Amino acid sequence: MKFKREFEKYRGFIFDMDGTTYRGTRIIPKADTTVNYIKSTGRKVLFVTNKTTGTTTEYHAFLKQNGLNILETEILTATKVIKKYISNNFFDFPFFALGEDKFIEELRDEGLTYSADPLRIRIVIVTLDRTLNYEKLEIAARALETGAKFLAANIDDTCPVDNGEILDAGSTISALEKRTHRKLELHFGKPSRFMFDEAIKQIGLPANEILLLGDRIETDIKMGNLFGVDTALVQTGVKSNFADYKDIAPDYILNSIADIII
Amino acid sequence: MKFKREFEKYRGFIFDMDGTTYRGTRIIPKADTTVNYIKSTGRKVLFVTNKTTGTTTEYHAFLKQNGLNILETEILTATKVIKKYISNNFFDFPFFALGEDKFIEELRDEGLTYSADPLRIRIVIVTLDRTLNYEKLEIAARALETGAKFLAANIDDTCPVDNGEILDAGSTISALEKRTHRKLELHFGKPSRFMFDEAIKQIGLPANEILLLGDRIETDIKMGNLFGVDTALVQTGVKSNFADYKDIAPDYILNSIADIII
Repeated sequence: MKFKREFEKYRGFIFDMDGTTYRGTRIIPKADTTVNYIKSTGRKVLFVTNKTTGTTTEYHAFLKQNGLNILETEILTATKVIKKYISNNFFDFPFFALGEDKFIEELRDEGLTYSADPLRIRIVIVTLDRTLNYEKLEIAARALETGAKFLAANIDDTCPVDNGEILDAGSTISALEKRTHRKLELHFGKPSRFMFDEAIKQIGLPANEILLLGDRIETDIKMGNLFGVDTALVQTGVKSNFADYKDIAPDYILNSIADIII
Repeated sequence: MKFKREFEKYRGFIFDMDGTTYRGTRIIPKADTTVNYIKSTGRKVLFVTNKTTGTTTEYHAFLKQNGLNILETEILTATKVIKKYISNNFFDFPFFALGEDKFIEELRDEGLTYSADPLRIRIVIVTLDRTLNYEKLEIAARALETGAKFLAANIDDTCPVDNGEILDAGSTISALEKRTHRKLELHFGKPSRFMFDEAIKQIGLPANEILLLGDRIETDIKMGNLFGVDTALVQTGVKSNFADYKDIAPDYILNSIADIII
């Protein structure tokens, strides 16, 4: 086993998770041997995801079970990035989330205060929420109308699952924007600078020594393009239509992440 | 009591309901005497609404209780317009609705078939739904992905209520469009031709003999402008920002519908 010649030069590899490392509940074939080989050469890996419905511990357990010899600290989620930002800047601001319990728990564990009272809420956070309902949308809307900050952990319109796609934060954001006549202020997943800066800090290498591999043009490839990191688009996740993204281009197109090794 | 000179010429008056005839649960002051005077002169009235959360019978009872001497047939709802269209064109198509029980019941009473099975659904209808949740959004999305028609009873982003506004069909539509990468095909409330044609048919007068009174530039006034009916914008409902609607203009601006009479 060795690197294909063109990939030898990279000292760090950032992998998207959903659609790139696994799809639904199944690991991408040879993802394990590929990642383990990279690590055996002393190179760095980091798994970066916009997913917020599970904890880092759960994602780590899943990847370990599927044979990837990685550490929990080699996983970076949008939950981690947004909670760090809020902790550093607005620690005392009660937040409300259109998000699932595990997302809210991770923020509470950091010491942040959750509230469902529109008059108390000072930050509204949108992310994937399969428990979304009208009442929660209206709590968020009324908090936004009274001046709460309007943030998102991620802005993906849909999330790929075993049998297709499901509604994700981007769709909810557009409904709230119409409802409140306000615009989302900041988001913390790919392709944001917040996520990029945290990834670079964690992997500890300059941008030009890193390859970012992902299945989404508008998140993975766009983040690489924006911040000067080489990118490889893999075809194991969502179907991408290049015509929709004229200014975004991957450096490599691969069948899967296993294609960096021969 | 008599008409202000400029309004004498109209033979028919179309009134918006929410924000124009009443606001929340309170009738607009002098709406009763105004409407009753119009009817006493032999002129025609019609109440036209994008609301779908109640039945025509309920809206009629409310207006009667508040002193308006009108008939149930003088009320036209978006529910009535869309159910007529589906009956005439797609009677055998099972429909699913992001709508409340009363809306669904009115369509079933017409003989239309409701289904919550994405593989059976051939028409998805969006309207105001305070029982909206993630599961319903996903049923609609999966039906749209398998080719169901994408219709809306109304496209208002918000609905005015006693203490502000709440999320309405337009916000839900934008979420579904992001989720499915499809666009809404047709809608049947104001300012659509479907609603206009039905209103004209019901009031039985040529467009140039009618005045349309409403509080919403983008629905009431726009419908009048589109189809050549004079309009009066009243200021008893939503706050309108003219700058947002450069190509739409009312013929009159009134404090309330009572201002057509002195």
